[in-house]
Amino acid sequence: MASGEGSRNSAAVRVALLGCGTVGTEVVRLITGQADDLTARVGAPVELAGVAVRRPHKHPWLTENFGDLVTTDAGELVTRDDVDVVVEVIGGIEPVRGWLLEALKSGKSVVTANKALLAEDGPTLAEAADASGADLYYEAAVAGAIPLLRPLRESLAGDRITRVAGIVNGTSNFILSAMSAGGTSYADALEEATRLGYAEADPSADVDGYDAAAKAAILATLAFHTRITASDVHREGMREVSSADVAAARRLGCTIKLLAICERVVDASGAESVSSRVYPAMVPDTHPLAGVDGAFNAVFVEAEAAGQLMFYGQGAGGAPTASAVLGDLVAVARNRVGGGRGPRESAYASLPVRPIGEVPTRYHVDLEVADREGVLAGIAGEFARHGVSIAAVRQTGGVNGAVDGDSGQARLTVVTHSAPEAALSATVSALLDLDHVLGVAGVLRVEGLGRAVSALGMGE
Amino acid sequence: MASGEGSRNSAAVRVALLGCGTVGTEVVRLITGQADDLTARVGAPVELAGVAVRRPHKHPWLTENFGDLVTTDAGELVTRDDVDVVVEVIGGIEPVRGWLLEALKSGKSVVTANKALLAEDGPTLAEAADASGADLYYEAAVAGAIPLLRPLRESLAGDRITRVAGIVNGTSNFILSAMSAGGTSYADALEEATRLGYAEADPSADVDGYDAAAKAAILATLAFHTRITASDVHREGMREVSSADVAAARRLGCTIKLLAICERVVDASGAESVSSRVYPAMVPDTHPLAGVDGAFNAVFVEAEAAGQLMFYGQGAGGAPTASAVLGDLVAVARNRVGGGRGPRESAYASLPVRPIGEVPTRYHVDLEVADREGVLAGIAGEFARHGVSIAAVRQTGGVNGAVDGDSGQARLTVVTHSAPEAALSATVSALLDLDHVLGVAGVLRVEGLGRAVSALGMGE
Repeated sequence: MASGEGSRNSAAVRVALLGCGTVGTEVVRLITGQADDLTARVGAPVELAGVAVRRPHKHPWLTENFGDLVTTDAGELVTRDDVDVVVEVIGGIEPVRGWLLEALKSGKSVVTANKALLAEDGPTLAEAADASGADLYYEAAVAGAIPLLRPLRESLAGDRITRVAGIVNGTSNFILSAMSAGGTSYADALEEATRLGYAEADPSADVDGYDAAAKAAILATLAFHTRITASDVHREGMREVSSADVAAARRLGCTIKLLAICERVVDASGAESVSSRVYPAMVPDTHPLAGVDGAFNAVFVEAEAAGQLMFYGQGAGGAPTASAVLGDLVAVARNRVGGGRGPRESAYASLPVRPIGEVPTRYHVDLEVADREGVLAGIAGEFARHGVSIAAVRQTGGVNGAVDGDSGQARLTVVTHSAPEAALSATVSALLDLDHVLGVAGVLRVEGLGRAVSALGMGE
Repeated sequence: MASGEGSRNSAAVRVALLGCGTVGTEVVRLITGQADDLTARVGAPVELAGVAVRRPHKHPWLTENFGDLVTTDAGELVTRDDVDVVVEVIGGIEPVRGWLLEALKSGKSVVTANKALLAEDGPTLAEAADASGADLYYEAAVAGAIPLLRPLRESLAGDRITRVAGIVNGTSNFILSAMSAGGTSYADALEEATRLGYAEADPSADVDGYDAAAKAAILATLAFHTRITASDVHREGMREVSSADVAAARRLGCTIKLLAICERVVDASGAESVSSRVYPAMVPDTHPLAGVDGAFNAVFVEAEAAGQLMFYGQGAGGAPTASAVLGDLVAVARNRVGGGRGPRESAYASLPVRPIGEVPTRYHVDLEVADREGVLAGIAGEFARHGVSIAAVRQTGGVNGAVDGDSGQARLTVVTHSAPEAALSATVSALLDLDHVLGVAGVLRVEGLGRAVSALGMGE
């Protein structure tokens, strides 16, 4: 491993790295380990100018091999004259926002994997980049190594994207896969994910859908040329998904996945809006997303001319994320060497955000009911009264074998046609007021994923 | 539909379109139909400066709506001063090569879908682009709408690609899907493909693998930074695939697909080379490529840091291909407006091409043998003598039910471990010399697709 010492080259593209955890360490390895390849691809050497970490003693590999590059003063590093590009892999909003804005204002290009910051305040960063003519790239912020943002931003720039939907959080997918495969509870599956290093000590960002919502905001912004922040994304986590839900999904030939969905919605008058949302949903086992297990990510993109595209790969991890960072680093370094810059942010469409209440999806509703005549008629009546059309009903227990001993209870499973969330919520409230409805055991959306389904040979 | 007449704008990016068949018509529709979107995304209007077609009377829609733009003189059009970008969707080597070279030499950027030309003479075009500082983009040349070249060239530019493998020819895949689903013969499936417009009157480019080989050359060139032409690609078509082969594959739990495979091969001494090849092969049904049916394309990319990625979508057709052309058009138009240019071709690695004889794969060998004692021992001995290790053997017919009436024949199916093509060929020749081997009914490669397999939960 070559030390950075004495290797300064005036024609080189000089990189400041902020953060040196799992991803940062891989970035250092790739920059230094394949220096010749990078030089050939960029047209000039790519050199590390400095690495900012908070506690250098926690990074023995870094300090041993690149001790002269290590600093604890990120603020100073990002404004140094000998730095051309700032690569940020720390994460979180503050103090990173200030450093990246400072770097962009002074004309340095920024490569970041920081989905939370981009989803909260991407426009401010983009404006700073535009003002100084610097590049702002962030492929690693969504779906790790999977090239997804560049295809949305560049390959499909001459098309009209209608939908981006998929699995973008590996931790929650790992937990759901474990629950599905082994019949384990959420708590046990989370414990295993934590033990294996897939989940953080505080798993909230993953299991409550914050991480997926940040990514959905970034995807929707690029896909629909409209600024969407994390707060525009309807978010439901997966803590409430029970073993019973997983079993109910299996009975329907489905698997539960935490999905991020971004859609261009066109209403009857032709007016367009954007819906972006994150929630656990049942997906038919025959759909390719149902087979995406463990820490993998997969995203479907639909565009008017291109039709349906699918992207699949590793959504997290040090090396895959570093691969995406390096791809961006090569791009901004090429721009430094050759002049010019990458595509700018574009939010010209400024579409309104559609409230979740107005977004139609299909639902699976599990009801505990009294095993009496006329129950189904009463329940079907409530669905009809709220304009929610029933696609299928199945009764278990009751006269054919009680659910709960001899209590006279039965279970009624209803799958609806597409209905707005508001109508479904109102239906569920009304059902709970019916005498013969003892409880609602579970409500889950069912996503056939639109045209994805027909292209892959499945009925809607 | 707005006419181009009178809409000339000095700040606009002016496009000359060569060819106006299925793809060209969609390109015209997209450029004119979403002019406002393109203007916002590019930062300047994108205007059609002219459309060159050989026989204008064969293009009534074009002449009716854009009559003032139509010309039969492509050579004059590409050198016109008011043209900034040339988009070529004619195909074939001559006379297109001359026009595109002329355009590039005069500093006009080129967007082309011409895989044959790129695979034969890409380097000459790339050098002309470099010399004048123009852009040369060709996403539409491989896998239609699927963003594949941009990810290889840009997203993975900081990684080390080890393998690109997949289904890149929709026509042959349609035929193989039909043979597999319906048990139809090659001839009948080809007839259906022709009737539905998936196959040309002369299907050779598709079924003999020329189209896939051209795409493999383009993919290998980008993935390994090494100039690979179509003649460097080992090519076997699919005309010889019989219903019996399809049935044999099914018995093994496999499906036959025409694959394009580009690999970085590292030998024991650490020396690197590139293998690129196109042939029909058995793929396990559990592998995602086995489920890619009809005219769809799917490509796996493996890189050292990124791990395994998969890209899936429509590989051909007017609208999908036009989507890829438009994505490139927006990119080169942005470069015109903002200065700078896209990544240049890079062939710095200059790896040698590995001869097919030295490339190891697994094989499925179907033998007709005499139903005598000691037959298996003799056959196994020949495999061993040539250094080809047997993974599994199955005998059908013979003592357990004759294959061919009561003739005393049996069928022996051998699946090998990985062996070089040269060793397998020598084994097959030697087998034919054995008294008790009556014939070789079929030899097909078996592709587990390397690490793809383990990542997706399948054993090698």
